[in-house]
Amino acid sequence: MMNPETKRLLIGVSTATLCTALFKRGLRNQFIQDVGPVGGFESGLPNMVGEAFTLRYIPAREDLNPITVFQDRSHPQRKAVEECPPGAVLVIDSRKDARAASAGSILVSRLMKRGVAGVVTDGGFRDAPEIARLPFPAYHRRPSAPTNLTLHQALDINVPIGCGDVAVWPGDVIVGDGEGVVVIPAAIADEVAAEAVEMTAFEDFVSEKVMEGRSILGLYPPTDEQSRSDFAAWRATKGR
Amino acid sequence: MMNPETKRLLIGVSTATLCTALFKRGLRNQFIQDVGPVGGFESGLPNMVGEAFTLRYIPAREDLNPITVFQDRSHPQRKAVEECPPGAVLVIDSRKDARAASAGSILVSRLMKRGVAGVVTDGGFRDAPEIARLPFPAYHRRPSAPTNLTLHQALDINVPIGCGDVAVWPGDVIVGDGEGVVVIPAAIADEVAAEAVEMTAFEDFVSEKVMEGRSILGLYPPTDEQSRSDFAAWRATKGR
Amino acid sequence: MMNPETKRLLIGVSTATLCTALFKRGLRNQFIQDVGPVGGFESGLPNMVGEAFTLRYIPAREDLNPITVFQDRSHPQRKAVEECPPGAVLVIDSRKDARAASAGSILVSRLMKRGVAGVVTDGGFRDAPEIARLPFPAYHRRPSAPTNLTLHQALDINVPIGCGDVAVWPGDVIVGDGEGVVVIPAAIADEVAAEAVEMTAFEDFVSEKVMEGRSILGLYPPTDEQSRSDFAAWRATKGR
Amino acid sequence: MMNPETKRLLIGVSTATLCTALFKRGLRNQFIQDVGPVGGFESGLPNMVGEAFTLRYIPAREDLNPITVFQDRSHPQRKAVEECPPGAVLVIDSRKDARAASAGSILVSRLMKRGVAGVVTDGGFRDAPEIARLPFPAYHRRPSAPTNLTLHQALDINVPIGCGDVAVWPGDVIVGDGEGVVVIPAAIADEVAAEAVEMTAFEDFVSEKVMEGRSILGLYPPTDEQSRSDFAAWRATKGR
Amino acid sequence: MMNPETKRLLIGVSTATLCTALFKRGLRNQFIQDVGPVGGFESGLPNMVGEAFTLRYIPAREDLNPITVFQDRSHPQRKAVEECPPGAVLVIDSRKDARAASAGSILVSRLMKRGVAGVVTDGGFRDAPEIARLPFPAYHRRPSAPTNLTLHQALDINVPIGCGDVAVWPGDVIVGDGEGVVVIPAAIADEVAAEAVEMTAFEDFVSEKVMEGRSILGLYPPTDEQSRSDFAAWRATKGR
Amino acid sequence: MMNPETKRLLIGVSTATLCTALFKRGLRNQFIQDVGPVGGFESGLPNMVGEAFTLRYIPAREDLNPITVFQDRSHPQRKAVEECPPGAVLVIDSRKDARAASAGSILVSRLMKRGVAGVVTDGGFRDAPEIARLPFPAYHRRPSAPTNLTLHQALDINVPIGCGDVAVWPGDVIVGDGEGVVVIPAAIADEVAAEAVEMTAFEDFVSEKVMEGRSILGLYPPTDEQSRSDFAAWRATKGR
Repeated sequence: MMNPETKRLLIGVSTATLCTALFKRGLRNQFIQDVGPVGGFESGLPNMVGEAFTLRYIPAREDLNPITVFQDRSHPQRKAVEECPPGAVLVIDSRKDARAASAGSILVSRLMKRGVAGVVTDGGFRDAPEIARLPFPAYHRRPSAPTNLTLHQALDINVPIGCGDVAVWPGDVIVGDGEGVVVIPAAIADEVAAEAVEMTAFEDFVSEKVMEGRSILGLYPPTDEQSRSDFAAWRATKGR
Repeated sequence: MMNPETKRLLIGVSTATLCTALFKRGLRNQFIQDVGPVGGFESGLPNMVGEAFTLRYIPAREDLNPITVFQDRSHPQRKAVEECPPGAVLVIDSRKDARAASAGSILVSRLMKRGVAGVVTDGGFRDAPEIARLPFPAYHRRPSAPTNLTLHQALDINVPIGCGDVAVWPGDVIVGDGEGVVVIPAAIADEVAAEAVEMTAFEDFVSEKVMEGRSILGLYPPTDEQSRSDFAAWRATKGR
Repeated sequence: MMNPETKRLLIGVSTATLCTALFKRGLRNQFIQDVGPVGGFESGLPNMVGEAFTLRYIPAREDLNPITVFQDRSHPQRKAVEECPPGAVLVIDSRKDARAASAGSILVSRLMKRGVAGVVTDGGFRDAPEIARLPFPAYHRRPSAPTNLTLHQALDINVPIGCGDVAVWPGDVIVGDGEGVVVIPAAIADEVAAEAVEMTAFEDFVSEKVMEGRSILGLYPPTDEQSRSDFAAWRATKGR
Repeated sequence: MMNPETKRLLIGVSTATLCTALFKRGLRNQFIQDVGPVGGFESGLPNMVGEAFTLRYIPAREDLNPITVFQDRSHPQRKAVEECPPGAVLVIDSRKDARAASAGSILVSRLMKRGVAGVVTDGGFRDAPEIARLPFPAYHRRPSAPTNLTLHQALDINVPIGCGDVAVWPGDVIVGDGEGVVVIPAAIADEVAAEAVEMTAFEDFVSEKVMEGRSILGLYPPTDEQSRSDFAAWRATKGR
Repeated sequence: MMNPETKRLLIGVSTATLCTALFKRGLRNQFIQDVGPVGGFESGLPNMVGEAFTLRYIPAREDLNPITVFQDRSHPQRKAVEECPPGAVLVIDSRKDARAASAGSILVSRLMKRGVAGVVTDGGFRDAPEIARLPFPAYHRRPSAPTNLTLHQALDINVPIGCGDVAVWPGDVIVGDGEGVVVIPAAIADEVAAEAVEMTAFEDFVSEKVMEGRSILGLYPPTDEQSRSDFAAWRATKGR
Repeated sequence: MMNPETKRLLIGVSTATLCTALFKRGLRNQFIQDVGPVGGFESGLPNMVGEAFTLRYIPAREDLNPITVFQDRSHPQRKAVEECPPGAVLVIDSRKDARAASAGSILVSRLMKRGVAGVVTDGGFRDAPEIARLPFPAYHRRPSAPTNLTLHQALDINVPIGCGDVAVWPGDVIVGDGEGVVVIPAAIADEVAAEAVEMTAFEDFVSEKVMEGRSILGLYPPTDEQSRSDFAAWRATKGR
């Protein structure tokens, strides 16, 4: 189970900072490629943070995917929507194929109502304009109106998957902001979150100094003594 | 000629719903791929609906496409803009090549003034920021400043074309919303529109129930009796 | 050094018009492909205009790119940010690879504070939502959170590069608007700017007439006498 | 278990004929895209025929995939190689990513020695020149020297997968020839094989007639009476 | 009608030389991209030379493309095969989509028997191994077993098309060698052929000298007097 | 300068083995992507081994690249061909763009005659069928007839470049076999070569045992004692 303090910390840091913290640990490939928030930068939503609950699609075969399959209550797509735990993030492996939808606004609304933390696909959502208006973080590649049955067959729930060229293991910590989505291995989520908070304090300090006109040389990274002592003073003042 | 009642109905349904109605009829590939509204989701425009009037481009050969070609009043691009019937949608086959423009704001403005219903290309428009501000639906892949002569030679008017991997026959019914553009074969447009209206009523009912906290199981699709009778009651109340 | 009058003129014309002026001179490939403003169309910023100052990346080799490389004050990325002349545009050759960042908001802020005219990469920026909020023109392919060290090694400053399939020579004049970025060879910048101003006057005239309901035939291009005399009158009235 | 007679029949028909037989049943998407025999057309090998035994890869995470993982005898890649049944075809889901190998010549040799019928990946093989020389059918996208640990983590054995945009279910019948690989759903393999044999007889007849100079009109398909009676006579003569 | 002498000359020159001759005339985009001989380099066939006879495909719509459509003798694909003039090259616009076949060995055999000069598609052929064995030039992107009805609807015969990003006008002169296919505008075919023969003589001379150990500087191009006089002597000796 | 013994060793090992040796050192990205021998697997040539001598292209601008540029003896493409040291490998950064040639058979022949060890581009060669017949290793993406001036401007000689997504520094050791090309950082070439020889001995032993019918479990990697002692005995017998 995810540490609530870690969740709190991750709401306050960016995916960019987290990628750097992961890079320092040898993990270079944790940012889900070519996926962004359905509603663009300006959603005003806080960071999406939660443990991964996964759904795996394979290509749809026509005879196995008539419109009637959804009458089966155990259909994995519908089951995943009802079973994804509150606070978790539903991550869908759509094999980077956005030619048909991964899901639509009704399922995304249901996830929201159930208290799920967010949803990510490396394909596309249908009803994307409606999803963009929900106060709920949803990430995809591009809008895609065709029903998922056209190309996707939901198969497995909560198995390890690939999403946007990144490995996602159930329980990994997923963080999304206006930029995109990063995957933090469960075992290092606490330490990465703590480090990212420290890095964020420093970056905020640097941003402030840069906006005041200071050069980045010696400051970012803080290779001169002045920068280090200024930062110490800034932290004391700001209480961070 | 398109049935005015069908046009009215299609203004009230989404491309996502239409794709599902088409899927049920064995048509899996009617959504124009990787094309969206120039101005994004937030245009506030009603659906674009109209019959397809097509324009076909082939690759431009340098000796045939100096800047002077537009002095010819019968140049197919200019002719298409003046001849596309009011109420129709101009659909351009740009071979999915957005490296040069398919058209720009002057031609798009002229289409608007002539009462054309909208314009679609599987390439890009130039003057895209200006086009985004027009109260006129225009769909493309991405902005593209270079004149169409750079890569595109307008050739044929109102012949069957491909656009975004979809077959478009003159007279097919084109519907666009914030998500993208769907192509409905002319012969089934009336029945598809009618069915989509029914589906939309049901989806609106489901959305309302989901927002009230109801599970999708048994409701979407309505496999239990309760859902079906609730929907019947809802329709009666709403007059839909 | 760039002519200040040319700079002034280029603020008032579009990249689309400039591409046509370049096309007339046999230059068909000066629009940087698949790159747009970080903040989208609606930034409200004036055109970005300045001479190209370039930065070249090659693929990163893991042993040469630990996080510690930035402690070197002569690291080309940091050096470029501090040395790019006020009024110039920093253009980065990221080999069209947006899987890792080309730079982030701190460096972009520093460029802004130093009076640089703008920044362009054919990769992606990290901290893209923050960059979108700066009153500073920045162009990229898509947001990308991973640190540039993941995939990019900064190598050369102010050498000729490719950016988005376009050749960029140091000193070329770079112009960006809501649509994208065009590269004007230094030697013809003055004449291209002057011609584009003329073309813009004509396009504004045509747009006005089209909005009044006039046909494009004979008007755009102005092949009939009426159009030419109307334009002459319009110029006299408007003082353009 | 696969019908031995069906296997015998499938050795004598082409993937092209099988695709048409599947198309007639509404299955349009059974040919694995962009995958060919490692050794090209000229291998001289008979058709690969066998039931699918699958192996699923997800993206590799660096900390989980050091070179030492292969010391684990239960590593799924090695396990799959030792457990794929004789007569079956090992089909690997490499997410269409050929930037690192799916397997190499030692594993492929082991499959051959164990009596496996063939191997298919939608990624690439390392040691491809050696694999091309084995009297064993192997299909991939392109040669790829980097060890699979670079990008692929073997995860699941004999689950449904996607391979080259086609759904592959364990037990589906896999047929490969010089052209590529087709996937026949298990339930219809017998009837598809029987029909393909009939179609092949007709195609051989047509080819013979075409080589004798006959027009395809009326012959292919056999819409005139003469063609049908000629084919009946040909079958009688040839004993097919 | 193509000049027979031009045909004879074009059999003796390479597509590479022809591309350079076209480049000198401002035609930079006449080589069909990403298309090669079905049988690879080693076919031993002479150059394919003939006038373009074109066939245009659009995306297939499922209801218009059941397997029965070929019973119609006027189906454009079959018609094109029977009507393409002997000596011409059939060029197919498959919108660069090789996921389904453009044609198969029976139709290609019929073209061969009818005396057609060759066939080109920017998609793929089915029965590619059989086609590779025919003494007939055929060019495509990659083998593709699925019937053309899966994705392609044949529509127009002998209209201007795009093929591999090149404009092809009926009557253009098509030349193919082991490298690929070039399109020569009909109006300049004679002069381009004549110039290419001259260029080939020079290139053969240079190749011979380079193989004897001579530097390319001054020789290629022949900027020193020695090179020019050596070439004159070589031509005299060789009778070229 | 490259160690001659290292060169000798590298002739006897495969690029696949070298990639694994590099992977063990944290270098995951040293195989040039999507590039193969012009003549395919069956060239019969020994490994290409040599130090990198690099050539960098940027996109060609039309006014800077008329056919006459080659009259300049200091044109970087021609200069690189004459100055690449005997024994070195010429590696060309063509920005992965094979739409126009990187070089042709005359320049490649000249490299061969000068004693250069081989040539690599991440674009394409023209005259590819002729190059395939030379007893000289040449690697590219695909044949491409158009002259390099169409899209490529040669700019720099022997600077660090990217080639097929790999960093190539002048002096890096380049090794090519039938599979493709690997880049070994100069500083570790000796140790990587030595280790690869050891690995190759073991792989040859394993291949032999697998061909005799042995399981890979315990053998590859050699986790059981029997395998290790068998290998020791095999080495003694074989003198490796």
